[in-house]
Amino acid sequence: MMKNSSKSPSSARSSSSLPRLIRNLDAVFEPKSVAVIGASHEPNKIGHVILRNFLEGGYGGEVYAVNPNTPDVLGVKTIKRASDAAGKVDCALVAVPAQFVESALKDSISAGARAAVVITGGFGEVGNKAGEEKIKRLALDNDLALIGPNCMGVLNPAARVDSVFLPIYKMGRPHAGGISFISQSGAVGGCIVDLAARAGVGMSKFVSYGNATVINEGHLLRYLAQDSSTQAVVSYMEGVKDGPLFMSSAKVLTREKPLVILKAGKSKHGAAAAASHTGSLAGAAEVYSAAFQQAGALEANSLEELFDFAKIFTLPSSAGSRIGILTNGGGNGVLAADAVEAEGLQLAEFSARSMAALRSMLPSYATPRNPMDLIGDADSARYERALQIMLDDSNIDVLVVIVLFQTAALDSSVINVLVKAAQSKKKPIVVVSTGGEYTELHRRILDGYGIPTYPSPSSAMRAVAKFLQYAKYRNNP
Amino acid sequence: MMKNSSKSPSSARSSSSLPRLIRNLDAVFEPKSVAVIGASHEPNKIGHVILRNFLEGGYGGEVYAVNPNTPDVLGVKTIKRASDAAGKVDCALVAVPAQFVESALKDSISAGARAAVVITGGFGEVGNKAGEEKIKRLALDNDLALIGPNCMGVLNPAARVDSVFLPIYKMGRPHAGGISFISQSGAVGGCIVDLAARAGVGMSKFVSYGNATVINEGHLLRYLAQDSSTQAVVSYMEGVKDGPLFMSSAKVLTREKPLVILKAGKSKHGAAAAASHTGSLAGAAEVYSAAFQQAGALEANSLEELFDFAKIFTLPSSAGSRIGILTNGGGNGVLAADAVEAEGLQLAEFSARSMAALRSMLPSYATPRNPMDLIGDADSARYERALQIMLDDSNIDVLVVIVLFQTAALDSSVINVLVKAAQSKKKPIVVVSTGGEYTELHRRILDGYGIPTYPSPSSAMRAVAKFLQYAKYRNNP
Repeated sequence: MMKNSSKSPSSARSSSSLPRLIRNLDAVFEPKSVAVIGASHEPNKIGHVILRNFLEGGYGGEVYAVNPNTPDVLGVKTIKRASDAAGKVDCALVAVPAQFVESALKDSISAGARAAVVITGGFGEVGNKAGEEKIKRLALDNDLALIGPNCMGVLNPAARVDSVFLPIYKMGRPHAGGISFISQSGAVGGCIVDLAARAGVGMSKFVSYGNATVINEGHLLRYLAQDSSTQAVVSYMEGVKDGPLFMSSAKVLTREKPLVILKAGKSKHGAAAAASHTGSLAGAAEVYSAAFQQAGALEANSLEELFDFAKIFTLPSSAGSRIGILTNGGGNGVLAADAVEAEGLQLAEFSARSMAALRSMLPSYATPRNPMDLIGDADSARYERALQIMLDDSNIDVLVVIVLFQTAALDSSVINVLVKAAQSKKKPIVVVSTGGEYTELHRRILDGYGIPTYPSPSSAMRAVAKFLQYAKYRNNP
Repeated sequence: MMKNSSKSPSSARSSSSLPRLIRNLDAVFEPKSVAVIGASHEPNKIGHVILRNFLEGGYGGEVYAVNPNTPDVLGVKTIKRASDAAGKVDCALVAVPAQFVESALKDSISAGARAAVVITGGFGEVGNKAGEEKIKRLALDNDLALIGPNCMGVLNPAARVDSVFLPIYKMGRPHAGGISFISQSGAVGGCIVDLAARAGVGMSKFVSYGNATVINEGHLLRYLAQDSSTQAVVSYMEGVKDGPLFMSSAKVLTREKPLVILKAGKSKHGAAAAASHTGSLAGAAEVYSAAFQQAGALEANSLEELFDFAKIFTLPSSAGSRIGILTNGGGNGVLAADAVEAEGLQLAEFSARSMAALRSMLPSYATPRNPMDLIGDADSARYERALQIMLDDSNIDVLVVIVLFQTAALDSSVINVLVKAAQSKKKPIVVVSTGGEYTELHRRILDGYGIPTYPSPSSAMRAVAKFLQYAKYRNNP
């Protein structure tokens, strides 16, 4: 079935294969069966790590190991080629040298593959344009949703799909959650996924899309727009492969969910580095920024911001923008008030009822005001009472709760207090905690409950500002 | 011996007791003996935590436990008052209620105390101005270097001095190192010290100075200027207690070592919060910034920056400002190039010799250029050869080495490579690593060796920019 053999990816857009390609991304993220092509005995080989991920990670579908030179790998009987599989191969995971990729893909298509993830490098990025063009035609002719080549793989924690070849002890895998992340750079992708795993932040889909020969950011955004388990999308990109497709997909997506982009290669030297890295036509920072804004996408300026912004979008949207701040450390409250102003946000004025209620519950040496300093001897019960008052105050739209876990008076039960408050869904709540091991542990628990935590008042307020910016856009795109 | 009973702290400056007060800070940071006044059996009481810190922390001097109501605490025979001590009491650590503080200080002075750390609150910050004035007069009349009241204590890891009352399992204690930190807020102080402990960053002195009734930021800066184990000073402040003393002390200090300040209460609401927190006259952000600049101090804009900037100043100073970047992740290199431009820094141009040397050692698919992408399959040996070339290149002044520890090719031996390069002292080296648990562990080792590490290219470049700014100031104040 030959549908589209055009050379420019943008012409693929108008062909009938676009919806099919996007539909076939199902087989990338939720394959019914996979074939690991290049399955290997060697622990450091890509074809070993990926096979192990599927065998030991709890994946529920059929796993085929393809290797013509050995009878079995990791206890699985091998087949010589994908087309020897007993059943259909839904997705091919390709880790053989570049010269064998085309025939591996042909075999996989014969075996029924709707998708392929080609980890193998050695194509356009090293000058092998002909090789890359061949696999592109093959894929487009067969509506094969091909990710890569020259990529780091795909994660879908909910479906136990893990074709990322970085060892698990070096790069952690996050639990299932609402954030999806598409990255042009495998390295940057791995860093952020690893951060998410460590921080207890859940992810829906992760994909490193490498050379974007067939499937590019535009297809992925369109797919994620309709993916019900994706609440927010973050993206690292050096350049856009197909401008019109990107713009239309981003617009469709941002009507439903936020899109946060870290655009690299904005500077002169950065653009030159990007050209040598992924061959991207980077630069023209203003052009990109204008396009992102038009598409309703939010920009991050660093890896920290990309991660910090992603986390906040699992919260329910907020109608207003008046911030209430609660703290057990006075200095941290002062910094939070400064950050509210620095981000152009608005400090809430507590209602008269809240002021009276706070006055009656606070010790004599604490004064009701915003930021509300509960004082260093605050225990969980004091947090609980103050939180209740602030949740009930219609003058407050968003709650920023600073918790210094280091104080003697506060024990881990404050976690339950915060989770209960968040689960009331009355207001978006974010938590700020700065510190070491004990604090990190508690932050991780909160993040695991879907309460985004931040290491400082300023990083929290930056994220809150983006959160409110998107809420405004969504209400009035 | 009555020397100075003036009411305004600034008038103390001109009196003969200023040098003596500053000299007596020795007894705060390196006391020959301490008396814990208010030693307690109760694990959550301040007088228990502090006594335990001194008994179990390896402190080498004499420790007296003062409590008139019990024969012993934690196995130490108590005395009824400090003046009952068998030997001299060099420093009194006071944790009794406010109404008993004055007599405790009198007893301590009788016992020979040159210094006191008064943890106890309930003075000026709650309206008890008279009580605060009394202990101030007493201290000034006797050249008692009094820290506090209403403070969180003092740390000197090298001397095993630890009067911080936050439990060790909640707030870690850093190992001995070159950074000293003075904080007006105990809470912010605890957060940063805890961060340092977790990150493997060493500290020289930490002091939470609370109400700054006698000893204020000016005295502390003057003391730290001449403290040979302090390489850099960081400070959190909401207001300055004694402007002229602060300015003269800061100028003396910044001629020798860097001073990084996080000034809170810069915004309207932040200033109001600061007034209610430490009674500081905050606000007038521009006035403070101008004064800091005049004094040669560097400003940080967030807790992260305060910590990030502090770390870099344990490196030897740099004569030039041309940055060389090494990476094993292309995308991270692109972000680093962007960050160089964003911070107004200069990307180095490799010498012809370096270009030739790199070309001959790199695999065919890597191109010599700055940022130098060693590619994801780089091992420690490739890092070592590239580092050597860049250390020898006189076109490069500062090295920013990005290390993705997640790759299969790289093992922990890259730590030795980096430590060897840093110990050659040819150039300042900072490391950038983004990731989770495995990455954090390796960053901690590097920080412990005095190689500052950063979680992203942008945070690293911000710190490098401050580093170069100070080098410039010091060469031409």
